[in-house]
Amino acid sequence: MGVYQQVIDAIKQGDRFLVASHAHPDGDGIGSTIALAKGLESLGKKVKMYNADPVPYNLKFLPYSGEVVSELGPDEKFDVTFMVDCSQRDRIGGDAAEIDRERLGKLILIDHHKLNSSECDIVCIDVDAAATGEVIFRLFKAMGLEVTKEIANLIFCTFVVDSGSFRYSNTSASLLKDASELVEAGASPWAISMAMDESNSPCAIDLLRMVLGTFEMRDKTAWVVLTQQMFSDSCASEDVAEEFINYPRSILGVEVAMLFRQLKPEEPASSKSAKGGSKEKWKASFRSKNAVDVQKIASAFNGGGHAHAAGCTLEGDLASVKERVFNEVRKCLSA
Amino acid sequence: MGVYQQVIDAIKQGDRFLVASHAHPDGDGIGSTIALAKGLESLGKKVKMYNADPVPYNLKFLPYSGEVVSELGPDEKFDVTFMVDCSQRDRIGGDAAEIDRERLGKLILIDHHKLNSSECDIVCIDVDAAATGEVIFRLFKAMGLEVTKEIANLIFCTFVVDSGSFRYSNTSASLLKDASELVEAGASPWAISMAMDESNSPCAIDLLRMVLGTFEMRDKTAWVVLTQQMFSDSCASEDVAEEFINYPRSILGVEVAMLFRQLKPEEPASSKSAKGGSKEKWKASFRSKNAVDVQKIASAFNGGGHAHAAGCTLEGDLASVKERVFNEVRKCLSA
Repeated sequence: MGVYQQVIDAIKQGDRFLVASHAHPDGDGIGSTIALAKGLESLGKKVKMYNADPVPYNLKFLPYSGEVVSELGPDEKFDVTFMVDCSQRDRIGGDAAEIDRERLGKLILIDHHKLNSSECDIVCIDVDAAATGEVIFRLFKAMGLEVTKEIANLIFCTFVVDSGSFRYSNTSASLLKDASELVEAGASPWAISMAMDESNSPCAIDLLRMVLGTFEMRDKTAWVVLTQQMFSDSCASEDVAEEFINYPRSILGVEVAMLFRQLKPEEPASSKSAKGGSKEKWKASFRSKNAVDVQKIASAFNGGGHAHAAGCTLEGDLASVKERVFNEVRKCLSA
Repeated sequence: MGVYQQVIDAIKQGDRFLVASHAHPDGDGIGSTIALAKGLESLGKKVKMYNADPVPYNLKFLPYSGEVVSELGPDEKFDVTFMVDCSQRDRIGGDAAEIDRERLGKLILIDHHKLNSSECDIVCIDVDAAATGEVIFRLFKAMGLEVTKEIANLIFCTFVVDSGSFRYSNTSASLLKDASELVEAGASPWAISMAMDESNSPCAIDLLRMVLGTFEMRDKTAWVVLTQQMFSDSCASEDVAEEFINYPRSILGVEVAMLFRQLKPEEPASSKSAKGGSKEKWKASFRSKNAVDVQKIASAFNGGGHAHAAGCTLEGDLASVKERVFNEVRKCLSA
């Protein structure tokens, strides 16, 4: 029995469903969550959508995004829990990560990343899919479930996010054919792109201008820096920073692009008057274009990610952080 | 007989072909030119590719782009001339616009814009197509012509350019299905996008930073300014400026986005010592998101374009140019 059929059988047998994705959700996580939930509801199931974090500002246009909750009642119990785009329970975060395993019911993973997921009862990973949304689309087709206009838009959004608008190397013939079918079912590429890309605030323009002022290159590497001071000077919110790494990446000849982002100062665990205070913390993000495996760079600092996109956190002042990172980058560039 | 069949018959009967597109070519013009020419060559035809202007820096990665010439011999004669993505001979510019009509042979227009084209012998306009490249793909399929990997990449590039990476409202189910077939035939979305978007120079980053410093908003309008001084301060070339209008357009609530770009000072026709010298000239570009027809704004200043993208040229200092344009914008916003 194929794994899609196992999922279909579990859906048939269940009545109360939880659908959850990873904390700090992106368009694939949230779009997949809502699409799956609405598909289940169309079969008459009771469904709760959960995320530890709020839906980001540029995804609030998605239908039903207001129904995604961040809290679970102390007595809630489910027949089936779907983890979508999230292979580990502790990545879900919040209430759902801490809930008793037994209250989650059958645990089903729907994903397109090949990851360890031993705690799940059914593992539906389709590594040929460009997005978890594409796995859900395949599931719906296998079920013969009607793809409404709203579901088509939700799934199309997952394609746009995870393939970089059909630009990245995961843009397969199958993804484009599925996208074509979604448009036939009523998805609107322009409305989705406009909602996602054209909902900037003037503050974000201001922040981008400051960030571009920090642009530097060395060897086949280029980077920009984002400080907490820039956030307060520009009135921009933290969630606009995601795309800034694309600017150093856009430079001809750059193999590794980096973004150094200063994290918010955390209150020290002990008294604030403790000498020295807390150290600066920086999130370093890496993107590579071709041969360099940036996961190796990130893992040298206990970070993680993929070959072409990874990240880690470092402590110290910016100059020393940059230098330590650059030493690792150099090793990978010369490898 | 369908118009595609008329084109196929003309191709069968001809031996020497000219393929030309509009001056200042974009990815649809150049990609369509080369794709059509290489398709004709695969049938054993002699083909010359022509453009009045050089291939832009971010399209030089296209196969055979180096074979596009900007000059025609004084005695060259063709059986068939294709105008692709260019409905009027005078928009071709240069040698090809001035050549005797009789030397061009049968004149065939291939386009996806509904435009006047009375001088052509065959008019193959497919307004359902998102790009002229899609019309050419349909022609090749009607002919049963093999779509090689190179032709697939050339046509895929036209899709990317004219649909804004499958984001604009012309992204139809048919375009995505055609794109899927092109990937099956060997097109590489990632290689094309990387070549087009990831070949910036550091100078362009510098120029963008300066341009963002001019960002302003008024009512439902936002704009940026690009001066000749910025070009010399940043070492960036003129052709990087195309995309800057996307920044004001990206702002939530903005209906009309504008870019004011100072044109190069032209030598005055009379003596340079003539009092006052030449006036400043500005190119104003307009983009609208929804209801506003920016062609109306542009045509008030003898410019042109489409409902969502238009432009015009004005003389005078920046403050007066902005004010005159803004008065027209206000009329359209309140219409």
